[in-house]
Amino acid sequence: MEANKVPDIVVGRLPIYLRALTYLAEQGQAVVSSQELGQRLGISSAQIRKDLSHFGEFGKQGTGYEVAYLRDQLRRILQIENRWPVVLVGCGALGTALAYYQGFRAKGFEVVAVFDNDPNKIGQAVSDKVIMDVADLPDYVRNNAIKIAIVAVPSSAAQQTVDVLVSCGIKAILNYAPINVSVPAGIQVQYIDPSVHLQRMTFYL
Amino acid sequence: MEANKVPDIVVGRLPIYLRALTYLAEQGQAVVSSQELGQRLGISSAQIRKDLSHFGEFGKQGTGYEVAYLRDQLRRILQIENRWPVVLVGCGALGTALAYYQGFRAKGFEVVAVFDNDPNKIGQAVSDKVIMDVADLPDYVRNNAIKIAIVAVPSSAAQQTVDVLVSCGIKAILNYAPINVSVPAGIQVQYIDPSVHLQRMTFYL
Repeated sequence: MEANKVPDIVVGRLPIYLRALTYLAEQGQAVVSSQELGQRLGISSAQIRKDLSHFGEFGKQGTGYEVAYLRDQLRRILQIENRWPVVLVGCGALGTALAYYQGFRAKGFEVVAVFDNDPNKIGQAVSDKVIMDVADLPDYVRNNAIKIAIVAVPSSAAQQTVDVLVSCGIKAILNYAPINVSVPAGIQVQYIDPSVHLQRMTFYL
Repeated sequence: MEANKVPDIVVGRLPIYLRALTYLAEQGQAVVSSQELGQRLGISSAQIRKDLSHFGEFGKQGTGYEVAYLRDQLRRILQIENRWPVVLVGCGALGTALAYYQGFRAKGFEVVAVFDNDPNKIGQAVSDKVIMDVADLPDYVRNNAIKIAIVAVPSSAAQQTVDVLVSCGIKAILNYAPINVSVPAGIQVQYIDPSVHLQRMTFYL
């Protein structure tokens, strides 16, 4: 399988390419050169060509890439041709914003259930969902063969939440709690922490 | 200045180290080895030692790093010893969650003003702020010498918002709109797009 050979940093750039190609396709653009794509993304054209060469021959010398074709190939490579069901754990201010977020569906994901441990929230509506008891999470994940979870709980509850998710079959976790969590080998974790991004910029100010 | 010599990918890991060290200090841990830090973060101890060596000698062979000292040095290197004032543009569901987010202050940032262009929102309270008219943003940024902005507007308004921010002196932008924006040289942009992180993981599923 390709996944074993491709550097993780290359995989990390594919969604960025896909996002730009999706935008260009929506704008009606049929062909894009690696130069134009690179300029748009702040990545060198050589890097883009090298990254994509891991997966095959997508462009023609001198004419560039067919936008819709490359977009569809990246969707296939990233395995988002179909929509993945996702559970959301934690329905505070951030979890609520994520529950309402309309951007997931077009990108290959759908939040199918929202969980919290607060008795005052359980049973309440958020977006088009009813908040479920986190005690029912393991059964829900197993019964629906869910593989992806978004964690938006406080830091103090993050590791415990992740342990439960892993134990019931979750393979990929997007963690919004600002703390590093431990997972067994083979489980993917990605972090979103706005402070980390801000701190990365202040270095240069 | 150090900023010119250090690879950007190294700078990107410093906030991760800082987050772990801050956590360990809160737990009362005085000393940490690069091995323990690496295990916690999923980064090799050699990489950590190499990254930190760009900035000086922080550890002693065989004893490891003093947690509080290294934390303070990283705060100095990242220039977050003092708190940066930040403007937040866009007060939809996500902007609202960010306005209420309590995590920024401890990390060196404070949202000092929130802007929107919706007449129904302007003048309303969000967290301890009153939402201001985005038309007043340039004056506010200039008068208060703000350097950092968080953009949480729809994709369709992102480039225009960024152009305004740059024109009035903003140097670092954290962009939540799921679209790449163009900025002049010398302006930092970081992106937060949960779909990009999710897609990066589905590659491996």
